[in-house]
Order: sequence, then C-alpha cells, then structure tokens
Amino acid sequence: MSEFDLIDRYFGANAAAAAAAGAAGVVLGIGDDAALLRVPDGHDLVAAVDTIVSGRHFLEGADARAIGHRALAVNLSDLAAMGATPAWATLALTIPAANAAWLEGFAAGLLALAARHGVALVGGDTTCGPLTVSIQLLGFAPHGTALRRAGASAGDLIVVTGSLGDAGAGLRLAQTASAAVPAASARGGVDEPIQRELLRRFEFPTPRVEFGLAARGLASAAMDLSDGLVGDLPKLAGASGLRAHVDVEHLPLSAALRAFASADQARDWALAAGDDYELLLAVAPERLAALTEAAERCGLALTRIGRLGAGMGVDWRLDGREFLPNVLGYDHFR
Amino acid sequence: MSEFDLIDRYFGANAAAAAAAGAAGVVLGIGDDAALLRVPDGHDLVAAVDTIVSGRHFLEGADARAIGHRALAVNLSDLAAMGATPAWATLALTIPAANAAWLEGFAAGLLALAARHGVALVGGDTTCGPLTVSIQLLGFAPHGTALRRAGASAGDLIVVTGSLGDAGAGLRLAQTASAAVPAASARGGVDEPIQRELLRRFEFPTPRVEFGLAARGLASAAMDLSDGLVGDLPKLAGASGLRAHVDVEHLPLSAALRAFASADQARDWALAAGDDYELLLAVAPERLAALTEAAERCGLALTRIGRLGAGMGVDWRLDGREFLPNVLGYDHFR
Repeated sequence: MSEFDLIDRYFGANAAAAAAAGAAGVVLGIGDDAALLRVPDGHDLVAAVDTIVSGRHFLEGADARAIGHRALAVNLSDLAAMGATPAWATLALTIPAANAAWLEGFAAGLLALAARHGVALVGGDTTCGPLTVSIQLLGFAPHGTALRRAGASAGDLIVVTGSLGDAGAGLRLAQTASAAVPAASARGGVDEPIQRELLRRFEFPTPRVEFGLAARGLASAAMDLSDGLVGDLPKLAGASGLRAHVDVEHLPLSAALRAFASADQARDWALAAGDDYELLLAVAPERLAALTEAAERCGLALTRIGRLGAGMGVDWRLDGREFLPNVLGYDHFR
Repeated sequence: MSEFDLIDRYFGANAAAAAAAGAAGVVLGIGDDAALLRVPDGHDLVAAVDTIVSGRHFLEGADARAIGHRALAVNLSDLAAMGATPAWATLALTIPAANAAWLEGFAAGLLALAARHGVALVGGDTTCGPLTVSIQLLGFAPHGTALRRAGASAGDLIVVTGSLGDAGAGLRLAQTASAAVPAASARGGVDEPIQRELLRRFEFPTPRVEFGLAARGLASAAMDLSDGLVGDLPKLAGASGLRAHVDVEHLPLSAALRAFASADQARDWALAAGDDYELLLAVAPERLAALTEAAERCGLALTRIGRLGAGMGVDWRLDGREFLPNVLGYDHFR
C-alpha cells in the first residue's frame, strides 16, 4: 500500500466529512500541498504543536487507539489552557511499517476524539521511521480573550481541575501489565474497576476544552499540567513574576488513587507525575465562586491548592510545615 | 541542559525578535501553551506540514545546517505551490541527544531561511528519540486566490520552474562522499564547482516562494515537485480529471547536470528523482507569456514540457515516440 493510499484510506473519510460540512471553516482540506482555512472575523488564530514518541510518551506496544487519542488529546489540552476553540489539525505520522490493523486503531482513536471536539483533520504527512506522532492543532479565540500563563497578580488563588496523580498510577499499571507481572502481586489486591479507571486516566486523558472556554474572563492565568505540578507550577508563577505558596495536603486525589496507593505514593504522583492533563489556573479571590460554578457546569471539580505572592519559586507546605518534594517534574532530557 | 533551556537557547532569539517586531501578526509567540496569531482581514489561513526523517529524507550524519534548512524549505515549497505568503512556523523536533554543536548548526540553518522569508518561529516541542523534524508552516492568501492542484482545463500547458534532476545528482554525490569513495573515481573527473553546485541543490533546496506569489491569477493549477515528476505529474493532472502529454526531451536540465551525467542518467534523474522543489504548473496558453515574465522577474526560467488533454494518466513521449520511464516516483512505503 502506498503512502498516499494509506492517508486516503484511514483519514479520507474525516477529510471528506469536514469538506462536506464546510461550516468549520475548511475551504480546502487534505489532498493539496496545503490546507486553506478561514479564521472567524475578530478572532486570533491559536496554534499548538506536541509530539509523542514511542517509549517516551507511551509504552512500546501500547494500544494503537490510545496512541491516536493521546496524540490529539495533548494538543487539545494546550488549546484548553488558552481558552481556545479547537478547529483544525494536521498530522505528521512516522511509522516503522504500514500495518493496516495498527493504522485502523490509531485513526479510530484520533478521529473519535476529533469528532467529539469538532476538529477537522486538514493535512498530513506520513513517513517511514521510528514511531513518532506530531500533531499541530489550530483553533481560535476572540481578540484579547485567550488565557495566558502570564497575567496573574499577587493575592490570586491557585486552583486545579479534577484530580491529580491518577495518570501516574495508571502508568505504573500499564508498565506492570506490559511486564507481565502476575496481576495479584503487582496490584496489591485492589479492585479491578479501580485499576481500570486509573489505567483509563493514563491511556485516554480527557482534555478540559469546555472548561477552558468557560474560564475566559474569569481566570487570570492558565496552563495545562502535562509535566507534573512540580515542573509546571514554577512556570505559571514565574510567567507573572510571582512566588507560589502551595498547601500540599489540598492537592485533589481521586478515590481511586487513594484506594490504590499509599498516602505518600499518591502525594508523589499528584506532585510529580505527568500526563494528568488537568488545568492549573490563577484566579482573583472574588472570581473563585464564578470559576467554580463554571467548572461544575462542565462536571469538573475545582480545587484551591494555594495562592500567589511576591517573590519567586515555590513554597511547598504540608500541614503548615515546609515540605521538599522528593521528585522532579518530567523533563525529556533529565 | 533541560528541554526548556534548549528551546530557549537556540530558538529564543528568533522568538524574541518576532515578538518585538510585532508586525508579522504574532500576538504571542514561544513560551505559552500555544501561540496567538493574527491572519490579515480578507485572507485565508494556509497550513502545511512536512516531516523529514534521518536516513529517509537526508543522509545519516548530514550537516546539521542543511537539515535545519531542509526542514523549513520543504514546507516553504508547499506554501509556494499554493501562492501563499509564509508567516509562522512551529517546530516539532525529536533528537537522540541534546548535542549543543548539532543544535547550533540546525538552528542556524533553519533560522537563516526563516529570516529570508520573514517567517517567525512561534512554537516548538522538543522530544528525545530518533532524529525526526516536523514543521508546520502557516501563511495566508487573499480569499479565493490560492493556487490549487485542481483547476486546470484541457488545452492548458504544463510548465516547470528552474531545472530538474539536479538534486538527484546531488544526492548521489552526497552518498558518495559519505561512503568515502575516492573523489576522482566517484566523480568521474567532473569539475569541483559543478559538483558543489549539484550538491548544493540537494542540500539547500530553494523554495520558489516569490514566484508562487507571482503565479496567482496566472496559473490554473500548481504543486511542488518533491517526489519527482513521474510521481507528481499524475497527481496534478488527476486533480483536474485530465491526461498529461509530456515531451520528455523538453525537461529542463541544468548545464551542471549535463556536464556531470550521461544523457540517459540525467533524464532519469529529471523524471524521477525527488528533492528538486521546483514548481509544476498548468497555465492557459494565452497566459504563458505573462507567467514566463513573472518567472523572469524572480530570476527563474520557466519551461513548457507538455500539455493537458482529456483522459487520465500520463502520455510520456521522447522525440515524438512513446516512452516508458523506467523509474518510479518516490514513495516512502515502496
């Protein structure tokens, strides 16, 4: 099967549907040298790019559907953090061989998530090489409304969506499964449904797109948690030239995570594991109630974990005492 | 050096310059979850993506500067084929290790070409893995003016810019050099300057951006020659539901290629070698003179190589006789 057939076969249906729909601003989709797109009047274009690599961002031999989902989810999460409406994606896919079953799963995972968010695939490039998936996602936001990392003030509260650390536990479960360790010993007898929930959090992260849109005009700064709180929070605080004060005991832990892991292990994952793709935001105290309501309308919990003040860096506290996380945010070159 | 330091160190200057310039429509560049960009009123957004992989699109151990140049050039060529003004790029870079000397060369090659075309790097993602470079290039064109592959009519002439096959010869020279074959025997005694010129055509392709802009309103269809004429021409003709008739003896060959290769070898490279990044266009006969003048203003030759008629596929003729190219267009999965 040729490169061109591959693209047609697995992504052509989405491209054709997008072209037929027309409404999404796709003037010309897949099949030319470039796509032609129309950004609505009065809006800025928002562009994100994220690459996932086998053995780094997902396990070798991971489910193809989960890889397709993740490749788009990590980019949707970036647009969520900007409060932008996702619209168009291009896919740069490098695969070691043209395996039809793998491609079918990959396309299904990617396109299902794309459909859920009204994203049209408008361009692609397939090359042969070690498995690497790079997606650029384009969207838009009315002029001047996009959320940024910078823009917070001293006194703003630090909040996070959902729960932290679940993906860390899910990664551990996935590693255990792929190492074929006997289930009972590895999983410590924790219920199957709990394990499945944690694994799902790692394999099929849910980007907080709807909430990101709702947070426009309410949050003073935002970013997504892809590298873990310990790695990401200094970036959020630093972008506004502020110091973050965090009450570590307030980090939101899911019931599943509490059931699965010791308190110390759960805290470590909540602090440092990547892949949660929750949003981290700063909000003025007088807007906290409105932002919390916005989150609830999206079916999301919003938890206050600290505040911003003058200075730099992060002041981690556990039950009022100074606390030094014994973990580092994820860095591909550490 | 961390991932974040890397991006800052080698691409920060360009990002800062782009932000300072402001004029190029960059509202917010590198350093947030996504970039904010402003497409001029009355214009469509044009988006292309192309990936280059070590050992596939460039030789293992190729000069880092040439790799950086190529990664952007292949995308600029796509925008040239659309008649679009390039504006913003995002870079997804996967490298096996954080090698400072390599990154410096890579960034220099990429940013020099970006500066020449007024392109701002507005986002990036660096991951660790086998060397793969994926760039998405964004640009714009006034509504309804972009050149497409489709749109040609029976009777339109088929033309190409510049000369064909040089990059095929350049690739052969690069392979010879990397295999450390003694220079004299490998190069058949051809002059050094000729070899350098052919090697340059392969290593530092020149995207025909200026001519692409000039061809708007004149050409009826266009694409770039990245996979070789034998692979690409059927796509151009097919997009308009037409058959291409080509006079192979009219393919433009450079003096360097004629000096370097036998007539048969030169013809094979002109027909089938990829990487020339010339433009292939269809033009109504009454507009040929104007399109030729436009090319001359860009310092480019424009050569008529055939015409389009009813039917499908390609009718290759050499000196009036039927001709079957003994070569295939480049396909990564062949």
